[in-house]
Amino acid sequence: MNMSVARAVNVDEVRELARRRLPRPVFDLVEGGAEDEITMRGNLDAFRRHRLLPRAFADVASRDSGTTVLGTKLRAPILLAPTGAARVLHRDAELAVARAARASGLGYVHGTVSGHTPEQVAAVDPFWFQLYASGDRPRLLETLKRIADVGFRALVVTVDVPVFGNRERDRRNRLTIPLSFSPVAILRCATRPRWTAEFIRGNLPQRAQPDGRVSPFGTQRQILSSLYPVTADDLAFIRDHWQGPLLVKGILHPADCETAIERGANGIIVSNHGGRQLDRAPAALDALPVIVSAAAGRAEVLLDGGVRRGTDILTALALGARAVLVGRPYLYGLAAGGQEGVERVLEILVTEFDRAMALTGFASTEQIDGTCLMPVQ
Amino acid sequence: MNMSVARAVNVDEVRELARRRLPRPVFDLVEGGAEDEITMRGNLDAFRRHRLLPRAFADVASRDSGTTVLGTKLRAPILLAPTGAARVLHRDAELAVARAARASGLGYVHGTVSGHTPEQVAAVDPFWFQLYASGDRPRLLETLKRIADVGFRALVVTVDVPVFGNRERDRRNRLTIPLSFSPVAILRCATRPRWTAEFIRGNLPQRAQPDGRVSPFGTQRQILSSLYPVTADDLAFIRDHWQGPLLVKGILHPADCETAIERGANGIIVSNHGGRQLDRAPAALDALPVIVSAAAGRAEVLLDGGVRRGTDILTALALGARAVLVGRPYLYGLAAGGQEGVERVLEILVTEFDRAMALTGFASTEQIDGTCLMPVQ
Amino acid sequence: MNMSVARAVNVDEVRELARRRLPRPVFDLVEGGAEDEITMRGNLDAFRRHRLLPRAFADVASRDSGTTVLGTKLRAPILLAPTGAARVLHRDAELAVARAARASGLGYVHGTVSGHTPEQVAAVDPFWFQLYASGDRPRLLETLKRIADVGFRALVVTVDVPVFGNRERDRRNRLTIPLSFSPVAILRCATRPRWTAEFIRGNLPQRAQPDGRVSPFGTQRQILSSLYPVTADDLAFIRDHWQGPLLVKGILHPADCETAIERGANGIIVSNHGGRQLDRAPAALDALPVIVSAAAGRAEVLLDGGVRRGTDILTALALGARAVLVGRPYLYGLAAGGQEGVERVLEILVTEFDRAMALTGFASTEQIDGTCLMPVQ
Amino acid sequence: MNMSVARAVNVDEVRELARRRLPRPVFDLVEGGAEDEITMRGNLDAFRRHRLLPRAFADVASRDSGTTVLGTKLRAPILLAPTGAARVLHRDAELAVARAARASGLGYVHGTVSGHTPEQVAAVDPFWFQLYASGDRPRLLETLKRIADVGFRALVVTVDVPVFGNRERDRRNRLTIPLSFSPVAILRCATRPRWTAEFIRGNLPQRAQPDGRVSPFGTQRQILSSLYPVTADDLAFIRDHWQGPLLVKGILHPADCETAIERGANGIIVSNHGGRQLDRAPAALDALPVIVSAAAGRAEVLLDGGVRRGTDILTALALGARAVLVGRPYLYGLAAGGQEGVERVLEILVTEFDRAMALTGFASTEQIDGTCLMPVQ
Repeated sequence: MNMSVARAVNVDEVRELARRRLPRPVFDLVEGGAEDEITMRGNLDAFRRHRLLPRAFADVASRDSGTTVLGTKLRAPILLAPTGAARVLHRDAELAVARAARASGLGYVHGTVSGHTPEQVAAVDPFWFQLYASGDRPRLLETLKRIADVGFRALVVTVDVPVFGNRERDRRNRLTIPLSFSPVAILRCATRPRWTAEFIRGNLPQRAQPDGRVSPFGTQRQILSSLYPVTADDLAFIRDHWQGPLLVKGILHPADCETAIERGANGIIVSNHGGRQLDRAPAALDALPVIVSAAAGRAEVLLDGGVRRGTDILTALALGARAVLVGRPYLYGLAAGGQEGVERVLEILVTEFDRAMALTGFASTEQIDGTCLMPVQ
Repeated sequence: MNMSVARAVNVDEVRELARRRLPRPVFDLVEGGAEDEITMRGNLDAFRRHRLLPRAFADVASRDSGTTVLGTKLRAPILLAPTGAARVLHRDAELAVARAARASGLGYVHGTVSGHTPEQVAAVDPFWFQLYASGDRPRLLETLKRIADVGFRALVVTVDVPVFGNRERDRRNRLTIPLSFSPVAILRCATRPRWTAEFIRGNLPQRAQPDGRVSPFGTQRQILSSLYPVTADDLAFIRDHWQGPLLVKGILHPADCETAIERGANGIIVSNHGGRQLDRAPAALDALPVIVSAAAGRAEVLLDGGVRRGTDILTALALGARAVLVGRPYLYGLAAGGQEGVERVLEILVTEFDRAMALTGFASTEQIDGTCLMPVQ
Repeated sequence: MNMSVARAVNVDEVRELARRRLPRPVFDLVEGGAEDEITMRGNLDAFRRHRLLPRAFADVASRDSGTTVLGTKLRAPILLAPTGAARVLHRDAELAVARAARASGLGYVHGTVSGHTPEQVAAVDPFWFQLYASGDRPRLLETLKRIADVGFRALVVTVDVPVFGNRERDRRNRLTIPLSFSPVAILRCATRPRWTAEFIRGNLPQRAQPDGRVSPFGTQRQILSSLYPVTADDLAFIRDHWQGPLLVKGILHPADCETAIERGANGIIVSNHGGRQLDRAPAALDALPVIVSAAAGRAEVLLDGGVRRGTDILTALALGARAVLVGRPYLYGLAAGGQEGVERVLEILVTEFDRAMALTGFASTEQIDGTCLMPVQ
Repeated sequence: MNMSVARAVNVDEVRELARRRLPRPVFDLVEGGAEDEITMRGNLDAFRRHRLLPRAFADVASRDSGTTVLGTKLRAPILLAPTGAARVLHRDAELAVARAARASGLGYVHGTVSGHTPEQVAAVDPFWFQLYASGDRPRLLETLKRIADVGFRALVVTVDVPVFGNRERDRRNRLTIPLSFSPVAILRCATRPRWTAEFIRGNLPQRAQPDGRVSPFGTQRQILSSLYPVTADDLAFIRDHWQGPLLVKGILHPADCETAIERGANGIIVSNHGGRQLDRAPAALDALPVIVSAAAGRAEVLLDGGVRRGTDILTALALGARAVLVGRPYLYGLAAGGQEGVERVLEILVTEFDRAMALTGFASTEQIDGTCLMPVQ
């Protein structure tokens, strides 16, 4: 199989390209989940427990896969999730991701843990910003002001990291978070000299920058060391000091959905953090219908976790999601081919989603509903 | 295991013979389904979720496995489905298939995409004709007239290809549809020189034929490039201009069954196109009972997809199908041994079906009903 | 692992000994089922879908595993099923089996297809006789008289072979039934010279016997060529001409149970012929409760198929069986060690059953009921 | 992977360390279950059929994983189950286990079958004592008095060994219980000379002790040879002669739970003896809810069997258990690293349990209930 990114026929092939290019500890950093990775695998398997009913006689000669999420128009109901790993995959890191998202007509949710500043990413596209809220109110206010000043359109507050998940692959590889490489890890990375050379070239200058806030690793350490359980009051405080749309990421229980909406959330992102927090958490897709029902139209519900196919996206929308977030898929693309790799992944997903719409008889995303679903027998 | 077709004890063994004889890209062309092939495999697995109850004390000393499908008598409730691949499997292509069907007392549904003209196949047996309807009404009328003039007894309109399915095996093998071989594909085929020699010998003269309509590849390209979503109006138009029995192939949703019957269909073929269109579509067998119920006796319901055993046929009839269509099984036979290979496959299926009838206590196909079924525990 | 029969800790180990000692075609003859062997494996798997509840505080210091089946006392609720393969496994064939059964306090159901005459086996123990009934009434009467004269206590009529099952292993091995060895099969047997030498020594003299009826292969051919669907009238005719208890073997459908009891059967053997007749038939254990319910106490119900453990026997009794029949297990023993091997297998089963009774709190077989059952979650 | 105990990231890795260090027959002695080990594996799998719902917005910044079990305070709801195998794993045997439990703030249930006397273990921590009750009342009284005099706080009566389970690994390895090594077993142990040397050094002096009661193997033989079915009267007798809390271990049936409580049990340990008694018994976790319901608050219910993760402990508590017992996990630790190994295993479990509490939004064990549970779909 020719494995160049341009020839990859699906996300799995891009993943394979990434696996070959990355040192094992780095691939594990992207791929791994918590403990036995039951939830991580469960995210993917959940989609396979649904069957989609093809339709005949539908007028799908022309189709519109576009949608609007909290007021923002997108070419397809796909967002790029915040992840902290871009820096170690490619030297352009979040910039490449943001550029690819913009070029594809989709949106990238830039995250707190990042190799680039909010200002740098917003210069490409000030889409949405993901926040690991701190209990330190003055610092929180400062951050909110900075994000608003930069122009991000919506704020995503992550609420599923009261403590850090038990990611055993990283512990076995002796990676510590915030990212630092032990001698053992470095030795293991040496099997991929091309990656190693690029990583050194890409990161050394950055570390040398005078402004501490721009140094990604410094920022990561600060943020992670202040991880704490976001409370309902924290969310209300944020709502009071943020003008734009507000989303909460990491909801699986309907009571938490209620709390978030009561405190003013406009969007709910159903997510188990890619299976990286609580192993044994339900698959994101399995939790989706209950949250959609709890939201009852008061907030848009998005799904994050396990999307690898256009049919996955269609399934999520049929179950009530407004759009989906993808994380690992675009990281595979980034590792395999930088911005071009991310664009290839997004193109695959958009094409597959469009084809799935045609075959299930939907001419526009607005038409998608549960009538196309059938449980596996 | 002696692997000659005559000694093959079941369809799987014939499949194995075909696999050994064909270059991998050609075998993949026959075998492959869309994307992850969940639906393709699901078609087969669905049969294994049913148990058949043996009966004692039944008078099955003599049995009649014959039936009548839309007025046509058959030695057993088995039809040969339209497929486009015969040309690359054997130089006699659809002629060998039609001859084998006739010799076996069964019916071959000749397809639009073919290596032989309708006239050539009808000279063997003008059974049924499968149509990829075009939106171009004058051309459609011309085709209907030609099919009627040639004498085909029934018309099967395929409605599940509004767009082409994502068959990743072919993309990986760099096969393009309509069939053309890239240098990479040709190289891969070189591992089976016997097949290659015969393919060249069989296809070169054909290409040189003066009449463009007879050239199979030319015709394929025209047809496929005009693929479009057949509408209910199209079906009504066809009904108005076709005198004989009319079937619709590719129905999985009861509402589409209703539409087809309302527009005058006499037969419904429950099919997911062998798992080659929408991956995640339900297994054909799993969709069967709902369609039988929707048809409510107003149309005969046939099942297409996953039949490999006589017990599969019995299961389909017990769930309400009038007959089944087989596709890949006879293509395996064709690849493994031409007309003789197809006949061997049909003989296996008829013999197995007859034995299954005896053991479940049915002396004739008319008696078969759901009393013999028991779900897997 | 020391693999002598005496050291074997369970039936699976005896099976492994048999597999090593027998030529592949002969092992396949014993082991194989029909077609895809779904039913054959299903017989075993069905037991694993039940959980048995251990009990505390039960007075099981002394236990009685004995029972009475249709008036015959047994040391445990285990019978040895009729099978036709003993002759090719060991030169003492059915005589070794009958002796082992008697030595173990259990009963052997001697079958029509056999390497020894009813008289020879009855000389060891005239337990029960299994009949492939013929449609030829005078010959049937003659057989019934002979069986009665010899002294067999009960008659078992097999009703699940209206036609012969599709045993593909034998077809692949070119074995024909009644047993004869093609050159190919003989070649394959040559890999086990010890078995081959003994087989020749054991069978040549037999063939030379002047009395045709004693020749086992001759008798087999006659019987098998007259296989036909036993009718309810046939059963009534047998009932009229047989004084002792009458059992029907091969019932899976409640209506057939009713028919059998109405025609005078005293016992019903739930069986799918070891998965050797209709593939896709339900597991014998899965059919048991329905038949027990249909029999409603008017006939004793026995289970045949899939028993490999003492816990299997307990499960069958908990679901309403009076006793179980074992086939392959004792054939493994016979192949591995003649009479001693059969005794070892029976000892394993009786010991396991006794232990299972103790752990589930039953001091006698009469106490066993459904309270100890719990479905797998 | 560096496999030192200190670096092990989870119980499975400690298990792997133990497997490498122990001769196969000794590892099998710890690891093996009865017969096909369905119940043994079922204990583990049962936990994986539950999903735990993460919670957001919970105030889990500080958490208390401590609890009280029958009046005894513990740092976490974890007890160390009685097992008979410590002696062959490490020369400090039960003393190392008791010390590790105490150092970890947890409790060790010292067992009748042991390499150390009750007095020796009580000198470390007189936690609870597990009794294989004898039918010999005077001897039973003597034992109860001795246990009370030594100061053990609670008594655990095991009721699931009316006869000894069929542990086939030990039979294949020619180990006999009470532990003695056949020449074959000794030969197999020679592959691990380090273990062998330590075992000889640790056990020879012990055997030479003048006081027969202190010799562990002598005591084991006596106890095991007197195994018998504990009756309800026996339990009542024990209740009459034991002042402290009384628990019954080995309950799976609600009626037995009732009997135990009626006879005065204060605690019920749901257990199938680690899958070592009746194969096909339900998983301990699957039996838990029924027993919790039967106990109806009249006795504390503990779960024994299959716990390998902190999420397992949380699941058991969510289903109504007061605490869990672990057996094999600490034996792995003992084999891999003596007292330090046991402490490492306990630290892993406590840490994982604390993290699971945080992620499911519980700040104290008292809060844990079924609201966090969701069945696997």
